[in-house]
Amino acid sequence: MAKNVTHTNRVRADIIAMGTELTTGASVDTNSAWLSARLAELGVTTRRHATIADDLPAIVHEVSESGRLAQVVVMTGGLGPTADDMTREALAAAVGESVVLDEVALNQVEAFYASLGREMPETNRRQAMRPASAAVLENKWGTAPGLRMRIGGAEVFSLPGVPREMKAMFAAYVTPVVEAMEGREHVSIRVLRTFGAGESNLAEQISDLMAVGRNPSVGTTASEGVISVRVVARGDSDAEAKLLAQTDIDELRKRLGVLVYGEDDDTLASVVGKRLAELGKTVSTAESCSGGLLGAMLTDVPGSSACYLGGFVPYSYEQKSESLGIPMELIQTHGAVSEPCAKAMAERCRALAKTDYALAITGIAGPGGGTEDKPVGLVYIALADSAGVKVKECRFSERLNREVIRDRSARTALNMLRRKIAES
Amino acid sequence: MAKNVTHTNRVRADIIAMGTELTTGASVDTNSAWLSARLAELGVTTRRHATIADDLPAIVHEVSESGRLAQVVVMTGGLGPTADDMTREALAAAVGESVVLDEVALNQVEAFYASLGREMPETNRRQAMRPASAAVLENKWGTAPGLRMRIGGAEVFSLPGVPREMKAMFAAYVTPVVEAMEGREHVSIRVLRTFGAGESNLAEQISDLMAVGRNPSVGTTASEGVISVRVVARGDSDAEAKLLAQTDIDELRKRLGVLVYGEDDDTLASVVGKRLAELGKTVSTAESCSGGLLGAMLTDVPGSSACYLGGFVPYSYEQKSESLGIPMELIQTHGAVSEPCAKAMAERCRALAKTDYALAITGIAGPGGGTEDKPVGLVYIALADSAGVKVKECRFSERLNREVIRDRSARTALNMLRRKIAES
Repeated sequence: MAKNVTHTNRVRADIIAMGTELTTGASVDTNSAWLSARLAELGVTTRRHATIADDLPAIVHEVSESGRLAQVVVMTGGLGPTADDMTREALAAAVGESVVLDEVALNQVEAFYASLGREMPETNRRQAMRPASAAVLENKWGTAPGLRMRIGGAEVFSLPGVPREMKAMFAAYVTPVVEAMEGREHVSIRVLRTFGAGESNLAEQISDLMAVGRNPSVGTTASEGVISVRVVARGDSDAEAKLLAQTDIDELRKRLGVLVYGEDDDTLASVVGKRLAELGKTVSTAESCSGGLLGAMLTDVPGSSACYLGGFVPYSYEQKSESLGIPMELIQTHGAVSEPCAKAMAERCRALAKTDYALAITGIAGPGGGTEDKPVGLVYIALADSAGVKVKECRFSERLNREVIRDRSARTALNMLRRKIAES
Repeated sequence: MAKNVTHTNRVRADIIAMGTELTTGASVDTNSAWLSARLAELGVTTRRHATIADDLPAIVHEVSESGRLAQVVVMTGGLGPTADDMTREALAAAVGESVVLDEVALNQVEAFYASLGREMPETNRRQAMRPASAAVLENKWGTAPGLRMRIGGAEVFSLPGVPREMKAMFAAYVTPVVEAMEGREHVSIRVLRTFGAGESNLAEQISDLMAVGRNPSVGTTASEGVISVRVVARGDSDAEAKLLAQTDIDELRKRLGVLVYGEDDDTLASVVGKRLAELGKTVSTAESCSGGLLGAMLTDVPGSSACYLGGFVPYSYEQKSESLGIPMELIQTHGAVSEPCAKAMAERCRALAKTDYALAITGIAGPGGGTEDKPVGLVYIALADSAGVKVKECRFSERLNREVIRDRSARTALNMLRRKIAES
């Protein structure tokens, strides 16, 4: 099945991120990676990312070079209202044009401010300027309009640097243009999300599929405890690419079993929320060291009020005793970070919130508070249901920081509930 | 005081990140931002970052161009043992040399494996190869040795892509070379963090300081509702740069007043936590639409148990009534998203948790649940103390998504408390 596909006329993209905050290291550019991934899904290979300062000659040089070597150029940033936002001027200079005021764009920016009940600051007039030959792309998600124009052999899109706005504008304006281009590859990209195994362990189980040069290509990446398995299949048609990818996905699901919790944008919380809604079941939370993070994850999912009824954050001993009703004696005997305390937290939470399931977390997130017996990274996670309580003892590495220990604790709790309700 | 500093001989850096996992968007490059920040502190301005795939001609082109335009080039990645790691070959090709086996490097790689109690795989011999004119940089933190060589007018450093190894090798090999270079600038970098005003409004108040070409340069960036003001001062000595930056910081603090909550790595939560600890005061939280996010932010700060006693996440009507004791009649009369409900949540939370302050959040985060009277984005935030309760009505734009509305609600609550305790 696997074979090499060659294209004489492939569409290649360049991505240019602008901002002195990026070249000085004040901010990390996440837009370019996101754009590359979306372009890959559209069958377009990204040739390079360039990150440059708010510097007119540098922007002109970069966009001219990209116009010569790529067929699609996506620029982010430099569209704000201040003097150091010079994408508009740079694009005009790259093609020897001047910038003009776009009345329609001005009305749109003014209307955006009006919708917020505010008057447009005078400085924002700059945002309605465009190179003479450029089209303005309305920004319905913020104040900075985007631009589209032709430079050299490339369609150049200039989008705001704010990720939320950039993503919405990519979908609205770039996707349809790229989809209509000749020379796109036929690619199918699928991503499985797994939780519960380390990256090397997981890779060992699928090493034959990960061989270099194989089609589909299979690779793993790790982020926030989630190991993602990415399948990129190329074919002579969309249908062939899709079929090749599906065959690998089926094999991966067979080998990885319950480690796989979903695909693409699925999160542990979204999968848990969806399954609870299907079952008509409810959950509540009692969090000590995670301080509300688990509740925040569960309620990050739209419509979560159908299955999440509420929770407690009993951070102090007194709060564990008073709001949850855990006997102070239990805490004094076993400690707040203990299996009995986690068990009691889950049981009491479930009883008070009258839910089908309750999750509880108590642990030592550090950097202080650890002892020889109970080191930083020791976390107890409990899941209560009508049949009783199951407690998991986690010993996260002390090398992990507070943020990571809290995050992994909340995700591990979600994963316990996911595994429980997958069975039922 | 402010003046322009011109350097005929300024040291400029280029950063090149290599890896197909970066240009396909499977991973985000954080190395380049880290390197830029370190170089800036050393008085070296980064001209650009380039991110390219594991592709020989592309690497040769990029490093040749950088050797022509920069004085320092730092490359990351592409030093592994596999066939797609081609930094060594590309550097050799860029200067028309061949690669040779470095016996010292071979011994070092073998010794590293021996220290792990393992034999060096044969493939790792590749890692001991170097361009004929390059020096090998021993990697004491991993298996991939680095390289240093001259290309065009630049000192070129090639470091591993693993952030931990890259950072250690930058400190060991790049820092001393750069520190000894003529033409380094004397730079002082300061960042003020503000909350409560939009970026354009804030920029208007300091537009004279933000003038292009001014020294210090002053710029703003927005992230998660926080507007940061960055001051980069250049002088003929470190002391002069420091003084120039301080003068601007003083002026900015005077103009922006209470909008400024801190500097550098300060967060709203860390500033609130520190101030509460100074005052010996405590806080608790009652969160509906934010689902625990505010508690999670407050407890993200190490040592937060000194001031944060706990909280409630009464997501359902029943939970608001049962765990907080809010009269069901109040909820039925005014709705759960109302000023009276927010007020009652804060009051009851403060009474139950026995804290000096209590913060409450109730609102409609969307995307569903909005009505004409109470649209998505309507959020009531309450702060209770011994003197009573203050409620703030926020109308976040419906165009913001659920995640952003929840995040801004939690930060606005933190900011209310920050302003309150700054006065006391």
